[in-house]
Amino acid sequence: MIDNPMKTAAGSGIVVKIGGAEGMDYAAVCEDVAGLLSDGVHLVLVHGGSAEANALGAALGHPARWLTSPSGYRWRYTDRTTLEIFAMAARKLNTLLVERLQALGVNAFGLSGLDGRLLVARRKSVVQSMENGKRRVVRDDFTGKVERVDADLLRSLLERGLTPVIAPLAISPEGEAVNVDADRAAAMVAAALPAETLVLLTAAAGLLREYPDETTLIREVRRDELEAAQAAAGAGMKKKVLGAAEALERGVGRVVIADGRVARPISAALAGQGTTIV
Amino acid sequence: MIDNPMKTAAGSGIVVKIGGAEGMDYAAVCEDVAGLLSDGVHLVLVHGGSAEANALGAALGHPARWLTSPSGYRWRYTDRTTLEIFAMAARKLNTLLVERLQALGVNAFGLSGLDGRLLVARRKSVVQSMENGKRRVVRDDFTGKVERVDADLLRSLLERGLTPVIAPLAISPEGEAVNVDADRAAAMVAAALPAETLVLLTAAAGLLREYPDETTLIREVRRDELEAAQAAAGAGMKKKVLGAAEALERGVGRVVIADGRVARPISAALAGQGTTIV
Repeated sequence: MIDNPMKTAAGSGIVVKIGGAEGMDYAAVCEDVAGLLSDGVHLVLVHGGSAEANALGAALGHPARWLTSPSGYRWRYTDRTTLEIFAMAARKLNTLLVERLQALGVNAFGLSGLDGRLLVARRKSVVQSMENGKRRVVRDDFTGKVERVDADLLRSLLERGLTPVIAPLAISPEGEAVNVDADRAAAMVAAALPAETLVLLTAAAGLLREYPDETTLIREVRRDELEAAQAAAGAGMKKKVLGAAEALERGVGRVVIADGRVARPISAALAGQGTTIV
Repeated sequence: MIDNPMKTAAGSGIVVKIGGAEGMDYAAVCEDVAGLLSDGVHLVLVHGGSAEANALGAALGHPARWLTSPSGYRWRYTDRTTLEIFAMAARKLNTLLVERLQALGVNAFGLSGLDGRLLVARRKSVVQSMENGKRRVVRDDFTGKVERVDADLLRSLLERGLTPVIAPLAISPEGEAVNVDADRAAAMVAAALPAETLVLLTAAAGLLREYPDETTLIREVRRDELEAAQAAAGAGMKKKVLGAAEALERGVGRVVIADGRVARPISAALAGQGTTIV
């Protein structure tokens, strides 16, 4: 058996998903990572890339389009051109995070799910999208759901003192690159390690009873209330709640959906800010 | 002492630099890598990104510009915007190479020199560039020269059965991302491992006595002839010859500058095609 390098004197390991939307304070996140690391808390970071991909797609004349499943989940329509734009955008953010962490003395190590087959995701060759109340069949969508995580590879990086920073791309069993949802990818990474806590940082205070009124923040959700929370959540939060449920099901101790726009956002989440799901 | 995982039954390890210019046959390179790997030859790949970066820069309204040193070396003027464009372009090529290798059954692992501080490069805060016969001082160029390679990190990837695919970005001692010349980076990687052979694949038959006349291919250059070869080489080849000299000085057995536009380009280079420098 291999010891779990995520277990440290200061507690068990933490997986942090850093949202890719506008408003995130990346500098604050990186400073917090450096501080936690010097306190002996080891982290694995997973990030999005939505805002960067939207901007790059628009600049390159291939603007973002979205698909919505019959059950109300929304995702980036990822044809092959979009996949390449998304890869560039996500790897730009990955490089900037690694650079900033390195400048703070954190030996960050960027990778995507393609590298060493870290994340294997199945791609659906046919998906359905709702458009004006009608179902449309889409065949060229390179989006997938992470089914396997090579936790041993991540552990080997952690054992070398590296801090993995994971971009949300995966590889299909057939060897195709696919775009994956970063919240759910982070949930699978947390489950595979396993991590004690999964923190989902977002550009909101947490799960709100009435979006966008932050006074309606839900401070705690028990796992038996998750299904109702998921049904009530807006499109932006639906996948976070689904990711939370998937992580808890697979043995992660708790999930915190917390604000990524504040100082020391990870420490604040661990101290009980945001929505804790147990 | 750690065993050198580059040493295999079929001979010592090989570092291959895959040119980033137009005309390279990436499919042929990847098929050759897969074939060599199944013959027990382990490889480390380093790639460029020039053509992708030129195209992306043009599309984003920030076209490539070049600097030329007083001694005739030419390189991409890399202000911060160009650095980010170059990072996206290089990581796009990196992702496509990893994807293609994975589809061929090679467990490829993409990384750049920032990741885990694989490549540390010093950046000059002031450089001189020749313009119309005059020296101009440039202060915002994020280009560097690789000074340190973490060979142990590469060995740990090779020991896991991974094939490293390295994008030509490095980190400065101060923690800034810098663009590095891929030929010279490959030379430093080959020297650090150490590798028996460094193959520099390019969109030409090798070193030509009279560019672009391929009937003037120089088949062999001895290291005591390198200085003359370097002085005679055109701007595109100058850095390859310099990289070759740096690799040989540091203990690499031989360097082959060979054609990347042909079938089985690495095997052909190892069999004596192109220009062999010993």
